[in-house]
Amino acid sequence: MVRIGIMGYGNLARGVESAIGRNSDMTLKAVFTRRNPETVSIATEGVPVLKSEEAVNYKDEIDVMILCGGSANDLGEQTPYFAQYFNVVDSFDTHAKILQHYDETQRAAEDNGNLAAISCGWDPGLFSINRIYAESALPGGTTYTFWGKGLSQGHSDAIRRIEGVADARQYTIPVEEALDRIRAGETPELTTREKHTRECYVVAEEGADTEAIRNAIVNMPNYFDEYDTTVHFISQEELDRNHRSTAHGGFVLHSGATAPEYSNVIEYSLKLDSNPYFTGSVLVAAARAVYRMRNEGRTGCITMADIAPSYLIETDSRSLLETMI
Amino acid sequence: MVRIGIMGYGNLARGVESAIGRNSDMTLKAVFTRRNPETVSIATEGVPVLKSEEAVNYKDEIDVMILCGGSANDLGEQTPYFAQYFNVVDSFDTHAKILQHYDETQRAAEDNGNLAAISCGWDPGLFSINRIYAESALPGGTTYTFWGKGLSQGHSDAIRRIEGVADARQYTIPVEEALDRIRAGETPELTTREKHTRECYVVAEEGADTEAIRNAIVNMPNYFDEYDTTVHFISQEELDRNHRSTAHGGFVLHSGATAPEYSNVIEYSLKLDSNPYFTGSVLVAAARAVYRMRNEGRTGCITMADIAPSYLIETDSRSLLETMI
Repeated sequence: MVRIGIMGYGNLARGVESAIGRNSDMTLKAVFTRRNPETVSIATEGVPVLKSEEAVNYKDEIDVMILCGGSANDLGEQTPYFAQYFNVVDSFDTHAKILQHYDETQRAAEDNGNLAAISCGWDPGLFSINRIYAESALPGGTTYTFWGKGLSQGHSDAIRRIEGVADARQYTIPVEEALDRIRAGETPELTTREKHTRECYVVAEEGADTEAIRNAIVNMPNYFDEYDTTVHFISQEELDRNHRSTAHGGFVLHSGATAPEYSNVIEYSLKLDSNPYFTGSVLVAAARAVYRMRNEGRTGCITMADIAPSYLIETDSRSLLETMI
Repeated sequence: MVRIGIMGYGNLARGVESAIGRNSDMTLKAVFTRRNPETVSIATEGVPVLKSEEAVNYKDEIDVMILCGGSANDLGEQTPYFAQYFNVVDSFDTHAKILQHYDETQRAAEDNGNLAAISCGWDPGLFSINRIYAESALPGGTTYTFWGKGLSQGHSDAIRRIEGVADARQYTIPVEEALDRIRAGETPELTTREKHTRECYVVAEEGADTEAIRNAIVNMPNYFDEYDTTVHFISQEELDRNHRSTAHGGFVLHSGATAPEYSNVIEYSLKLDSNPYFTGSVLVAAARAVYRMRNEGRTGCITMADIAPSYLIETDSRSLLETMI
């Protein structure tokens, strides 16, 4: 049994916890939180919830610590810190900072003989390795990544900061026409606008100027100005009733030639009812790989690109040869 | 530079040769053939074509030998044999015999300190690892594999053995309705007939009984009797003109839950203008991984499930972190 610790208990951690129950070689040893542990109730019976400061005392009882904090505020510090004491897995997803995060985690893990897998999940994660497999099979090809339909937390937060907005949800939607062109073998240079549209559901405060809000949204630099954006004003009740879903998904397409006369298209897609639960499930598979690779002597920092697929799956190697290869 | 040898020079080898030219860290050292080398003309200038018996003399000049024979008659013997002398890559695709092929190759490679990657390509190969990734991310889910639209060599051969048939091509076609049900989140138990249809283009010999041929095809056990099969009689000229394509492709879909209320669908698909050229390109990526892993001390037999994605791609690890993770 691989003994798992969970650091931080939000939606992602709930996904990890659920996934542990779906993998018969995994067991949850403890959940750690920065909140008062008595206020945190978890789904698994008989597993302690403890203060995050206590984690280091459980060093010898936990094979892999899954870090369930956010990339914006938590993981940049947490991952290198806990990699001093544990084998760790995180879902660090700020693409522009992954190299720095890698270097900091590599040093901490390597110096202490631990193994850390960073940026696991689906993007980065399964999408990353699909970009790599596709470019390996069709070198010099063109890769496209599309996200959605799904809620963007960052864009929803940006709308909520506008004056007069009580609440908001923003969906990122891939442009079907662009997908179809690539599927047909074209390799268009697509602008931001041609790849995704943005759909916003906004609750205005009483008496707020909705036209001003709409303008503030659609013209917001970086977040919305380069997109075709639709804004719907709805009631808080409707938002709570119809826009609680954490469904998400996306596409990685790669188009490339194997000879001047032969073009090829590789497509990978995900359709997820719950983004955090799926990400959590991938983190658990990554934790299995970390456990196995550490047992083989590997230390330092890795990503899913450094993990052979057979390390991720519970099925043993000979059964794989008989049933899945 | 990774120095590649090619054993056997048919369509797959031409694909390998073309792929070597598309990877700047790969170079072709020699092509070996069972035919008279003087009758074999290859695309790359300045590379020798030699008798297959001479290969062992090139042991120290070739880093990885890519075996381009067929699974039915060649690779079962060739791969264990050449794994005694070389690091090798093959595309062995008789699923039912992969375990045996693995054991025989493992022994030969291990005893001689070589590394062999078997069953590389797309199925087995990229499809295998997608089945593994999907089941790792969504354990206990349901996996479906569909092939086509594409030519089936085995089924075409079976038709050509029928009395009165001068020539034939058989296409395997996935049933779009079945794909759509799985994409929508259903996990149906599909019969053979519900997954694929078979379309046959047949040239009858002069005076042959076409109705008898049609009956012999559609009722042929294992090959056709469990499928909805369409038979078209055409002229040799039309067959030669319109049915020379080696286009192929297929789909791996996996449907699974992360909680009772959350279902998810993962889809991977390939659309290939040339089956042998794409397979050849994957073999070259696998050869790179074999070269790198052997340099790290790995010996014995592996499949693509044992290869971390980063070993397959020419791009170095730090650039991957910056651009593709």
